[in-house]
Amino acid sequence: MATQISSKVQVPIILVNFKTYAEGTGKKALELAKICEKVGKETDVSVGVAPQLPDISLVANAVSIPVFSQHIDPISYGSFTGHVLPEAVKAAGAVGTLINHSERRLKLADIDAIVSRTQEIGLVSVVCSNNMDVSAAVAGLRPDMVAVEPPELIGTGIPVSKAKPEVVSGTVEAVRRVNPDVIVLCGAGITRGEDVAAALRLGTKGVLVASGIVKAKDPYSVLLEFADAMSKV
Amino acid sequence: MATQISSKVQVPIILVNFKTYAEGTGKKALELAKICEKVGKETDVSVGVAPQLPDISLVANAVSIPVFSQHIDPISYGSFTGHVLPEAVKAAGAVGTLINHSERRLKLADIDAIVSRTQEIGLVSVVCSNNMDVSAAVAGLRPDMVAVEPPELIGTGIPVSKAKPEVVSGTVEAVRRVNPDVIVLCGAGITRGEDVAAALRLGTKGVLVASGIVKAKDPYSVLLEFADAMSKV
Amino acid sequence: MATQISSKVQVPIILVNFKTYAEGTGKKALELAKICEKVGKETDVSVGVAPQLPDISLVANAVSIPVFSQHIDPISYGSFTGHVLPEAVKAAGAVGTLINHSERRLKLADIDAIVSRTQEIGLVSVVCSNNMDVSAAVAGLRPDMVAVEPPELIGTGIPVSKAKPEVVSGTVEAVRRVNPDVIVLCGAGITRGEDVAAALRLGTKGVLVASGIVKAKDPYSVLLEFADAMSKV
Amino acid sequence: MATQISSKVQVPIILVNFKTYAEGTGKKALELAKICEKVGKETDVSVGVAPQLPDISLVANAVSIPVFSQHIDPISYGSFTGHVLPEAVKAAGAVGTLINHSERRLKLADIDAIVSRTQEIGLVSVVCSNNMDVSAAVAGLRPDMVAVEPPELIGTGIPVSKAKPEVVSGTVEAVRRVNPDVIVLCGAGITRGEDVAAALRLGTKGVLVASGIVKAKDPYSVLLEFADAMSKV
Repeated sequence: MATQISSKVQVPIILVNFKTYAEGTGKKALELAKICEKVGKETDVSVGVAPQLPDISLVANAVSIPVFSQHIDPISYGSFTGHVLPEAVKAAGAVGTLINHSERRLKLADIDAIVSRTQEIGLVSVVCSNNMDVSAAVAGLRPDMVAVEPPELIGTGIPVSKAKPEVVSGTVEAVRRVNPDVIVLCGAGITRGEDVAAALRLGTKGVLVASGIVKAKDPYSVLLEFADAMSKV
Repeated sequence: MATQISSKVQVPIILVNFKTYAEGTGKKALELAKICEKVGKETDVSVGVAPQLPDISLVANAVSIPVFSQHIDPISYGSFTGHVLPEAVKAAGAVGTLINHSERRLKLADIDAIVSRTQEIGLVSVVCSNNMDVSAAVAGLRPDMVAVEPPELIGTGIPVSKAKPEVVSGTVEAVRRVNPDVIVLCGAGITRGEDVAAALRLGTKGVLVASGIVKAKDPYSVLLEFADAMSKV
Repeated sequence: MATQISSKVQVPIILVNFKTYAEGTGKKALELAKICEKVGKETDVSVGVAPQLPDISLVANAVSIPVFSQHIDPISYGSFTGHVLPEAVKAAGAVGTLINHSERRLKLADIDAIVSRTQEIGLVSVVCSNNMDVSAAVAGLRPDMVAVEPPELIGTGIPVSKAKPEVVSGTVEAVRRVNPDVIVLCGAGITRGEDVAAALRLGTKGVLVASGIVKAKDPYSVLLEFADAMSKV
Repeated sequence: MATQISSKVQVPIILVNFKTYAEGTGKKALELAKICEKVGKETDVSVGVAPQLPDISLVANAVSIPVFSQHIDPISYGSFTGHVLPEAVKAAGAVGTLINHSERRLKLADIDAIVSRTQEIGLVSVVCSNNMDVSAAVAGLRPDMVAVEPPELIGTGIPVSKAKPEVVSGTVEAVRRVNPDVIVLCGAGITRGEDVAAALRLGTKGVLVASGIVKAKDPYSVLLEFADAMSKV
């Protein structure tokens, strides 16, 4: 039951955040993105990638899967040296962006302004949150998606969907109450197909994953396991 | 129909933010707080004050009206040199705090953590917002109050309750949908009694005001006008 | 008397900051960089460009002149979603970076850490400053270059080299006292060849320029005028 | 050989940072400050205290030793809700301020502006730094004092003056080269009198200390040991 978010993005989705890992930088970002594209084609599961800003065009020119920015700033054209212009990441090939990742927390007023900017220029917005209340708050800003990730589980291999299922289902419920149009993803500690399946059964429409794929010995196999699990729920 | 928020704070309220105005610093903060106390006693309208951090104890020791901090940080006892410990402002005599004022915008996750800290130690939380969507977001964090202030009107003398009544009533409505327990104040440009009355008629429980009182030639007269208008709605 | 800073960068230099101007984003960044390259070849004056992060690889793959990042963060490979990894901008083709631009001011400890990172991986560092004292401070961190730009003149068309020559010559002197190896550039308000000539006569080794070129009706003519003036000093 | 920095502050000095420790908040801040005053009187060694912002007036009204703020912002009177106005901490009784503590790192341009503000209104400036290069940078801004504290040693009980004597003496030397008028303190891990003596022998004019005193079982005894050691160098 795939739902189209934009012409390029559909859910359920496995969204792979390359962070600033060596395994996801430069040429390796390109290789990893091609693996993600391959799994997407083989399984018919939507797989998206979020490489670093300097790698967006490299990746977007080489693959047909959706490419996300890891961050954008609440700015328009002008004098903002060193900031991330939404139009620039779009021109480079991004179709969406992460916002407020736990490693790049933003001011509330800026998250609101960034979500507005994504709507103006046509980028899919995925706002990260750290708990149920913050997810409810984010839903009030009407982004396309909220990705709840308890920061204490990020990078641990302890999956949020097993360790804190109540945070995931509670977020799904809290977000629905505020704005039923907002899609919920979850992340943190996801390393196996069953974690992905659990996430979907708890009411999410996908996962945000980083080290579980990017730092895996064999990213292809792990991502294939994720996609298989997702397609069976 | 006064409602008690805590043992020291009730609404409707006129909350006077002293900012870092010369007219609200040091001894002048003390004088101004005494004027606020006087008007409160004479009119039986609740008036609160938010002096600067170094002036909290000076003011709180001298007046019986509620004293708010202008800011606290999302911290507990520990190694946080130069930050604002909630316990320290409470010990100095504050009964509540502003959070996320437009001149001191905070990260979403920090606002959430600060609201939690106020609940732990018993401070009344007043989270500022800049528009309806952000007010709805704030309501998701379950503070005691949201104070909506369109930043473009702050300090202008153009009252939000007249220039943008739809922002005020829209905020009241949006907050009620998310969490009907959260009280709404409004602010920006309020300089006359009729602006205060309009704010209450739009569904708020009071106003957040700064230059309109602090920089008035005769703060006593203006505040009295505010209080009279409030008591008649 | 050209001096080689690295294999790719020499001074005197005209360094063109594309900011987030529409005229310097995406395909227009590419066109503008080609104009800069053309002037550099025609005049034998060193011209560098600083496009936005998502445009670095696009530009660097198309031109042979030095490409700078507008910003990098004080990080190494790891979990830093949404931050700018020095290795990533280098992999994309940058040979240097602006640091602490007035529109992207940084913490002192972070500037120090960033300069160290540039030295580790071989990027030319250009740290911006706003006055003489801050320039002297920056020189203590031993970057390759300091670019002094009084913020009140940026974008005004009032050239620092004419309006505040004492800030330029004072910076040259103050930096020399702290560390004579650090090269001084200046910027702000530079729109004509004579402003560039004045900057060099005051002891700098070049200029940092943005709107004067990027938003010029005919960037080629203005840059040619700059380069001619520079080659005659 | 005491040197007078201002009418209220002289070096050598033991400067006790109360941080946001429970043992240094509210009434306990007052008790601790009185202990510091007692030791100062008994030994004729200069002891200063840096309590939290809401405790400055409480402490300054009760003791005659110099009271420092832990932080101030680069602002003047105006609309800066929640920020720390230099005039306000002075009015509350502070005679100086810490700037850029490792737990409250600041932008370079802001440190410069804060140092200027302290000079305008007559507060003693103590700018913290994390290494030799940053200390040299700070010296370029001409504060009254630089306090070098390797962050990795803060709170460890491993004294900088023993573990990294070369950082201390190197800082003394680097600062002298840039500006011989700037006084050097050091801090981090100082828990015994001999650490203080070592700091002075390395060329500093005192120590910045926190947990070593504030969290000591018997602050009086430890501070007395510090002061005795200082008076014998």
